[in-house]
Amino acid sequence: MTAEPLFQRLCLIGIGLIGSSIARVAQERGDIAKVVVACARTGATLDRVRDLGIADVVESDPAEAVKGADCVILCVPVGAYAGVMAQIAPHLEPGCILTDVGSTKGSVIRDLRPLLPAGVHLVPAHPMAGTEHSGPDAGFSTLFQGRYCIMTPPEGTDPAAIAKVRTLWERAGSMIETMDPITHDKVVAIVSHLPHLIAFTICGTADDLAQETREAVLKFAASGFRDFTRIASSDVDMWRDIFLNNREALLEMLARFTEDSQAMARAVRYGEAEFIEDRIRRGRKIRGGLIERKQA
Amino acid sequence: MTAEPLFQRLCLIGIGLIGSSIARVAQERGDIAKVVVACARTGATLDRVRDLGIADVVESDPAEAVKGADCVILCVPVGAYAGVMAQIAPHLEPGCILTDVGSTKGSVIRDLRPLLPAGVHLVPAHPMAGTEHSGPDAGFSTLFQGRYCIMTPPEGTDPAAIAKVRTLWERAGSMIETMDPITHDKVVAIVSHLPHLIAFTICGTADDLAQETREAVLKFAASGFRDFTRIASSDVDMWRDIFLNNREALLEMLARFTEDSQAMARAVRYGEAEFIEDRIRRGRKIRGGLIERKQA
Repeated sequence: MTAEPLFQRLCLIGIGLIGSSIARVAQERGDIAKVVVACARTGATLDRVRDLGIADVVESDPAEAVKGADCVILCVPVGAYAGVMAQIAPHLEPGCILTDVGSTKGSVIRDLRPLLPAGVHLVPAHPMAGTEHSGPDAGFSTLFQGRYCIMTPPEGTDPAAIAKVRTLWERAGSMIETMDPITHDKVVAIVSHLPHLIAFTICGTADDLAQETREAVLKFAASGFRDFTRIASSDVDMWRDIFLNNREALLEMLARFTEDSQAMARAVRYGEAEFIEDRIRRGRKIRGGLIERKQA
Repeated sequence: MTAEPLFQRLCLIGIGLIGSSIARVAQERGDIAKVVVACARTGATLDRVRDLGIADVVESDPAEAVKGADCVILCVPVGAYAGVMAQIAPHLEPGCILTDVGSTKGSVIRDLRPLLPAGVHLVPAHPMAGTEHSGPDAGFSTLFQGRYCIMTPPEGTDPAAIAKVRTLWERAGSMIETMDPITHDKVVAIVSHLPHLIAFTICGTADDLAQETREAVLKFAASGFRDFTRIASSDVDMWRDIFLNNREALLEMLARFTEDSQAMARAVRYGEAEFIEDRIRRGRKIRGGLIERKQA
């Protein structure tokens, strides 16, 4: 027997990899929402969502889409939040929960709170799951299983609203953690955003090499470079928005990393074997920590 | 029917991941060497090789090991080449082929050629295969299948000796490319050595963060960081030696990468969306190139 649905009308603004995965898990389980509304900008995406049959209602206008919804999840790139909020804010029902899936959390408070209507509960969240693919076809219902979802509710948020968002992600199979948005943004800066910035950059560095070397680079991409390019194949709009909306934490982590890589360069130049060995051992130690935590 | 063995007595100096994989493929095929001699420094490794039964002769003294061999392959970290060469050079038979599997090739010429006896053929090679594991248990006979092996024979090397090393790697399943050692060292600097340096470094950067953030980093290592740590778990001695023996090319590639990452930092700081998008697109393009070449 399926439990009572958590929400009467769940509205997903944006129906790419994450949004369509939420729609699929809601459809499969039946205990997340009675009705799922999917909202997308382009006719092509709307048609595709209709063909896939993963939502009960398909809508192009965000203002229309959120009407009557008791939960709205923003699943668009974080740079689009302010614009979407301006459209939907006047139409959010009192008591509605407004949440999101964005990879930056300070920016969510900055972009959504000023327009938040009285009686609407803002509960930002970040499911730490994804692949290098995007679009409604890329989603799948098990995407969130066994992955962390970080919630960053502002102080004073209605505990019942927090509990409902927590239950949503628990039903999707995730493990829930709560932290403040500043800590969240620092952690993801080093865990995810900086590695992506590095991956995009090194691909550009390779692309700038003289023709002969560049051809050879493509030919001989061994395991190191290959792993870097996997993460470099991610969505353009999403990553541009992440970089621009986690600016301070990302620049701080990049500055720390650059200092450290310059120290490594100096050790290589002057043949400081012990320094280099120590750095390599630390990498192995961190890796060991991940394996213990079953994150590797 | 098995073809005539390529070598009468093949001597492997060092029997870790690569050396033990060569021993295994030689044993499986039967057409690579009549007798395989394995040489290692430590009693523990020698005992393990005896237990695994992957070599016909197990020997601790390199000078003894190379006696009577018509092919010697150095499979130790590249920093150990000069020391090993001093031990084995007086005992190499005329007509013997001396080759290696090291990831740096300029250093091989530098360290081996001065002591090379007349009549011994130096044919450096670099099988571009590996895993993050090491030691004689880590090897497997299919490690080289479908991977490139780059040969960097000095000008004037006996064509028959080059052909034999080529056949060795073809029988191991590899695709052979030939280039000069300087180009080789540049290509592997960007394809493999710089990505490893970056991976080791970012693990250290994370390890230096304040306790609270560091704990969260380990907990929330998403796909980006996780891929980085996989390559960061590689062998300490091997990578120290690679960095120190490909110094010039590695420092040049790191300098180019650092310039590019600083340009990216500036774009993030000043909100230059188009610049960031362009960088992300280049990453995707390089990735596309790899997929076309079946290297991804």
